[in-house]
Amino acid sequence: MENFSKKAALNLEAVKKNKPLIHNITNYVVMNYTANALLAMGASPVMAHAPNEVEQMVSFASALVLNIGTLDNDWIDSMIIAGEKATALKTPIILDPVGSGATSLRTDSAKKIINETKISVIRGNASEILSLKNSDSKTKGVDSIHSVEDASNTAKMLAGELQTTLAITGPVDLITDGNRTVHVSNGHPLMARVTGTGCTASAIIGAFLSVDSDPFSATATALAFFGLAGEVAGEKAQAPGSFMIEMLDALYTITPEKLEAGCQIKE
Amino acid sequence: MENFSKKAALNLEAVKKNKPLIHNITNYVVMNYTANALLAMGASPVMAHAPNEVEQMVSFASALVLNIGTLDNDWIDSMIIAGEKATALKTPIILDPVGSGATSLRTDSAKKIINETKISVIRGNASEILSLKNSDSKTKGVDSIHSVEDASNTAKMLAGELQTTLAITGPVDLITDGNRTVHVSNGHPLMARVTGTGCTASAIIGAFLSVDSDPFSATATALAFFGLAGEVAGEKAQAPGSFMIEMLDALYTITPEKLEAGCQIKE
Amino acid sequence: MENFSKKAALNLEAVKKNKPLIHNITNYVVMNYTANALLAMGASPVMAHAPNEVEQMVSFASALVLNIGTLDNDWIDSMIIAGEKATALKTPIILDPVGSGATSLRTDSAKKIINETKISVIRGNASEILSLKNSDSKTKGVDSIHSVEDASNTAKMLAGELQTTLAITGPVDLITDGNRTVHVSNGHPLMARVTGTGCTASAIIGAFLSVDSDPFSATATALAFFGLAGEVAGEKAQAPGSFMIEMLDALYTITPEKLEAGCQIKE
Repeated sequence: MENFSKKAALNLEAVKKNKPLIHNITNYVVMNYTANALLAMGASPVMAHAPNEVEQMVSFASALVLNIGTLDNDWIDSMIIAGEKATALKTPIILDPVGSGATSLRTDSAKKIINETKISVIRGNASEILSLKNSDSKTKGVDSIHSVEDASNTAKMLAGELQTTLAITGPVDLITDGNRTVHVSNGHPLMARVTGTGCTASAIIGAFLSVDSDPFSATATALAFFGLAGEVAGEKAQAPGSFMIEMLDALYTITPEKLEAGCQIKE
Repeated sequence: MENFSKKAALNLEAVKKNKPLIHNITNYVVMNYTANALLAMGASPVMAHAPNEVEQMVSFASALVLNIGTLDNDWIDSMIIAGEKATALKTPIILDPVGSGATSLRTDSAKKIINETKISVIRGNASEILSLKNSDSKTKGVDSIHSVEDASNTAKMLAGELQTTLAITGPVDLITDGNRTVHVSNGHPLMARVTGTGCTASAIIGAFLSVDSDPFSATATALAFFGLAGEVAGEKAQAPGSFMIEMLDALYTITPEKLEAGCQIKE
Repeated sequence: MENFSKKAALNLEAVKKNKPLIHNITNYVVMNYTANALLAMGASPVMAHAPNEVEQMVSFASALVLNIGTLDNDWIDSMIIAGEKATALKTPIILDPVGSGATSLRTDSAKKIINETKISVIRGNASEILSLKNSDSKTKGVDSIHSVEDASNTAKMLAGELQTTLAITGPVDLITDGNRTVHVSNGHPLMARVTGTGCTASAIIGAFLSVDSDPFSATATALAFFGLAGEVAGEKAQAPGSFMIEMLDALYTITPEKLEAGCQIKE
């Protein structure tokens, strides 16, 4: 297996050095927290959604983060325009299909983005990710998964179908590109009590995609970094308000060396 | 009088157990804080406003929170669509008429929502609530209220006219459904220095409405819980930034037992 | 030179006394933080952007803050409507041209606002401010500025062309109205690691404009106040999450006397 701990340290170091511009078209709830997380770790966030601006903005960016959390038709149009431009420029795109599977608008929008652009990574929880299957997919549904092994095989098959890297996050994160699969066990239970931690994880994957040409290792190492920030925060805070502030602090204070030492990525 | 302290404890316990999905169509300023407050106390927030999505989303929800804080015509349309669906499904709705009485758009929009949907609770400050009178109302205007008794009688009459529970929040909160009236004295002065505490109180009432079939007691107990969180925060923080973070922590750490002991609801 | 330290104290005292209503049409990312900053210092923020509401809302306000951070065509239209009304009412307007110079939409929108309304102050970083030149401007571009003296002369010329007060913020802020120029050295490096500190500085200038009829001194003293809040926060916090919370606390706790003593405004 690759030395992911070393890779994680190199990726974080590269972000701190290059300060990559990360273009986010994301939801209203998490915009502020996401921007602060990217700034804390050393990246340069920009939020821009106007249909007559996103092509130009994404052309300056090193990665594009598409998040459908508070979507409506206009925003989806902008995501497609930005995504097509990023695809043309070979700028990596990460999709966060928030709520896909819950409403038709979200499932349809996520699938539309996947079909019309080249997505490098999709990050979500298990039901969001499994809702992205095509109608003729042979992949199992979320209700028919009964073990960790089941989940792993299902995700692997779906990554192959969608030709992308998938990250299913939870207490343990599963990352697969169809060939390789790893699990990230960094994290803290209070992360589930702060809104937008998933969305922020996606933005941080965006930052790592901008410095790591392998979406699989970029995703695994970004999730290890974000999970480690949760662990560091959890040592200081016992409740979600102070925890979310400590997480921002940890994204700033965790050094590449500390990340290399704390990284929990296993097959 | 009912044992509201006991009821408050039961409501909080039920939220923590059931993790009710609370659908918010609210303003941009408070979305993040509101979502974090609901998560901290144990509820599951969702923010969704697309006109072609809100019917489906509200059908999964246990309560609907409508807040006109940064309204425009499109959002009002979505609030009406979601509100009509919630009405049909008998899902409780709380309206927060932010700024009603200040601009015509807000007053008209609040009245439109009240007329076209079945609202269980309306929470606002005195001038917002009194702006909701119909043109032929016999209720006094805000300027002609000269005593606590005046305010109480006026609110009672208006609750009867609008056939809903009204909560007028301030240093002491007044809750009335036209027949019953109580006052909640929990709270802390710094709550007025944090944006969106009123909006967040409304969302927490939404969470309590999802577990308490009596809108009157749901509202009184939710406001006692939120006010108590302010008191707990005020013991630790002396300025608004740290206070708002301590409030989120308190919403997480206050147990049903602690709420029962600290609840200040009186006639 | 004027006694800016004394003026700063008087301005802060007047805001605390008058609680001016500051109407913000600003970006999604910073709405919450900006509202909290204004509340913490003693002003009354309102965020309202509907085209059929902004004229009425701005008529109650003591200052209008226009910020193009997450602009789209609809929001620009609302900014123009609000700006025209504010111009007619002689209500001071501050423009924050976020990202002007980066995309055509932003540069064009900023110039349109400047042409169609009477702007009292424009605050941005050097490249944003210099992007506002007219096509026939004799002002140097940002790439041809090689010294502090160059920057100062260039800003002075541009302020004359645009007939407004300009604030170029950075490690040291430069404020000029074409005749007078001062530098503000209050501040802290962590301010650059928190999203929306520039936007929030603009909103605080808005609050000071509402109590100080001289835009030049209102701007310089507001930036000294905001920078001092950064210094106070930096004594307590070493990372951006806790720093941004400490800044809100400092905006609340800094007294007019403390501001007078800590103010760093020089020619």
